[in-house]
Amino acid sequence: MKQLKIANIPGDGIGKEVVAAATDILKTVSEVHGGLKFEFTEFQWDCRYYLEHGAMMPEDGMERLSQFDGIFLGAVGDPNLVPDHVSLWGLLIKIRREFEQSINLRPAKVIKGIRSPLLNPKDFDIMVVRENSEGEYSSIGGSMYRGDDEIAIQNAVFSRKATERAMRFAFELAKKRNGHVTSATKSNGIIYSMPFWDRVFEDVAKDYPDIQADSQHIDALAAFFVTQPDRFDVIVASNLFGDILTDLGAAIMGSIGIAPAANINVNGKYPSMFEPVHGSAPDIAGKGVANPIGQIWTAKMMLDHFGEEELGSVLLNTIESVTNDGFLTRDIGGRHTTQDVTDEIIARLKK
Amino acid sequence: MKQLKIANIPGDGIGKEVVAAATDILKTVSEVHGGLKFEFTEFQWDCRYYLEHGAMMPEDGMERLSQFDGIFLGAVGDPNLVPDHVSLWGLLIKIRREFEQSINLRPAKVIKGIRSPLLNPKDFDIMVVRENSEGEYSSIGGSMYRGDDEIAIQNAVFSRKATERAMRFAFELAKKRNGHVTSATKSNGIIYSMPFWDRVFEDVAKDYPDIQADSQHIDALAAFFVTQPDRFDVIVASNLFGDILTDLGAAIMGSIGIAPAANINVNGKYPSMFEPVHGSAPDIAGKGVANPIGQIWTAKMMLDHFGEEELGSVLLNTIESVTNDGFLTRDIGGRHTTQDVTDEIIARLKK
Ligand SMILES: CC(C)[C@H](C(=O)O)[C@@H](O)C(=O)O
Ligand SMILES: CC(C)[C@H](C(=O)O)[C@@H](O)C(=O)O
Repeated sequence: MKQLKIANIPGDGIGKEVVAAATDILKTVSEVHGGLKFEFTEFQWDCRYYLEHGAMMPEDGMERLSQFDGIFLGAVGDPNLVPDHVSLWGLLIKIRREFEQSINLRPAKVIKGIRSPLLNPKDFDIMVVRENSEGEYSSIGGSMYRGDDEIAIQNAVFSRKATERAMRFAFELAKKRNGHVTSATKSNGIIYSMPFWDRVFEDVAKDYPDIQADSQHIDALAAFFVTQPDRFDVIVASNLFGDILTDLGAAIMGSIGIAPAANINVNGKYPSMFEPVHGSAPDIAGKGVANPIGQIWTAKMMLDHFGEEELGSVLLNTIESVTNDGFLTRDIGGRHTTQDVTDEIIARLKK
Repeated sequence: MKQLKIANIPGDGIGKEVVAAATDILKTVSEVHGGLKFEFTEFQWDCRYYLEHGAMMPEDGMERLSQFDGIFLGAVGDPNLVPDHVSLWGLLIKIRREFEQSINLRPAKVIKGIRSPLLNPKDFDIMVVRENSEGEYSSIGGSMYRGDDEIAIQNAVFSRKATERAMRFAFELAKKRNGHVTSATKSNGIIYSMPFWDRVFEDVAKDYPDIQADSQHIDALAAFFVTQPDRFDVIVASNLFGDILTDLGAAIMGSIGIAPAANINVNGKYPSMFEPVHGSAPDIAGKGVANPIGQIWTAKMMLDHFGEEELGSVLLNTIESVTNDGFLTRDIGGRHTTQDVTDEIIARLKK
C-alpha cells in the first residue's frame, strides 16, 4: 500500500473551494484504486493569516511542509487584503524557491467539450517547461530617489546550472512525447541573458541529436499560440516567458479555469507542489461557481508525479468525458456549479 | 505646399519589397492630394552593408538621418548573415534610442476582409503605447565565468521620466479615443520594476479623473487578447510587454503581415520612425508574395503623425476596401502578390 502525505494549502479566494473539490476526487481515486492512500493535512496560510500574523506562514512553516510528500495548493493572493508581491513572495514563490522546485510544468491541450476561442484550434498538445527558480523573477534590484528622478532596476539572473536543468528536462520529456523542443528566446532585443540562453540551448541540443530543436522569439511564439498552436510539442521558457505562455495556453484551451501546473523538485530533496495556473479570483469566491477542473487536472499531475500515470490517465479521461457531456461551469459556457462538476467526476470514477 | 523629406531604409528580406510598395502608395497619396509632397532618399543599410563595412550604418549615419522629417523603415535583421542582436542594436534600436523615439505606437483592430483566427473577435480596436527607450531592453548587464558556472545578468531599468512619459501619452490618447487606459504590469512576480511602474501609473491616473484606468498582469492580459480583446482601448506597456502584446495583437487581427507601428519622438528634436511590426522574413524574400499591408498601414501612421489625419483615414479605408474585396496575399489566405495588392490600392486611391 502506497501512503502519501499531502499538505493542502487552499489559500485565498476560490482556492478553498477548488482544493476541497479536488481533494474529494483524490480520495475517490484512492478508494477505487485500493493500493494508494492519501493523508491530507490542511494549512490555512492565506492573506487573512497574514493580517493576523504579519507573515504568510509561521516561522517553522517550511520545516513543517518539508515533512510531506507533496503540497497541494489552491491559489494565493488577494490584493484587497495584502499587496500581491508580499503574499506571493511570502508563500508561493518562497516555496518554489526554498524547496528548489526548479521546473514548472504546464500542459496546454485541447479538451473535449471545452470550446477554444480559436476558430481552428486543430489538435494542439503542448507541454511548457518553465524555468521556475530564477530569471526575471529575482529579488536582486531596487530603486533610488523619489519623485521625478526615481529609477527602479530589476535584475534578471540566469545561471548555467538552472538554464541547463530546465532544458535537459525539456529534452527528456520530448523523448517521451513527440520529439520536438522549442526554446522561447528574445536574443534579438535582450542582449545579455537571452543570447546566453540560446548558447546553452545549442549546447544541450547537441546531446539530443534525435530531438528536433528550434528557437522562437517570445513575441512570435505568443502569436503562434494563436495562429498555429499545433506546431509545438515541448516548449522550454524562462520564468517570465513561461508565465505568459502558459496563461496564453490556458486561454486557447478555453479557460484559465482548467489549466493545471506542477512545480517540480527534481533532486528529490524536498516536496514538489501542485497548483493550477489560475489565481484566487476573489470576485467570484464563495459563490460555488468556480471551475474545479484546473485543480482536478492538477491532481492528475500529482498522480503522474508519484508514478501513478495510469491513474492519472483515468482521471484525465474522466474529466474529458464529463466536459464532453456538458457538465461545465459558467466560465466555459455552462450552467453547472463547482459541486455539480465534482460530483459527476466522482460518480464516473466510481463506476 | 507641405514638403516632407523622408529617409527610406528598406533593410533586409521582404523589407525591400514592402517599402517599395508603400512608397508608391505615398507618392499616389501626394499626387491625389496636391498639397503634400514627399521627397524620398533611400539608404541601403542592411546586413549586407554590415558584412562589407563592419557596421550597420556609416559613422555619420545618424547625422544624415537627422536631416529628415521622418524615417520609413522596412525590416532589419537576417540571422543567416549577422546575429540579430548585432544588426538590431546597430540600426533599429540605435535609431529608436538616439533619436529619443520614446513611444512605440501600435494599433490592433479588426480589418474587414481579413479573417481573425478567433472564433468571435467582436470588434476590437486597441492602441498599444509601448515604452520604447528603456525597460527590459537595456545594455546594462553582462556575464561572468564560462562553462558550468556561467551567470548572465540582464538589467531592466525603469526611470520615472520615461515611464511617466509613456503613461501620459496613453492617457492623452485615450481622451481622443474611448477614455480607457489599461496598464500592463507584473507587480505580483517582478518585485522592483513593476511595483514602481504601478506607483507611477496610479500617480498619472490621478491627473485624468475622466479616464477609466486599470491594471492587468501581463499573463492575464495576454490571455484576454485571445478571449476578450474588445474590453481594451489604450494599453500602456513596458518595452518587452509591449513587444509581446503587439505581436499578439497582430495575430488576432489575422496576420503579423498587416500590423503597423510608429516610433515617436515626442520632443520634436529628432525624426520619428515608421516601421511595421513584422520582421524581414528572409524565407519568403524576393518572391513577390510578402504582404505589403503592414508597411502601407505604417505609411498611414506617418500621415497621421504629420497632421494629415484625413489622408490617413482615406488610406486606411482604401486598404480595408481592398482587403474586403478579397485582394489578399497568401499569408492571409489569398492568392495575390505584393504588386497586385499595391496596384489595387493605388487604383482605388486615384478614383
Ligand atoms: C527585432 C526586435 C528587437 C524588435 C523589438 O523587440 O523591439 C521587434 O520585435 C519589434 O517589436 O519591433
Ligand atoms: C502569481 C504569480 C507570481 C505567478 C507567477 O507569475 O509565477 C502566477 O502568475 C503563476 O503563473 O503561477
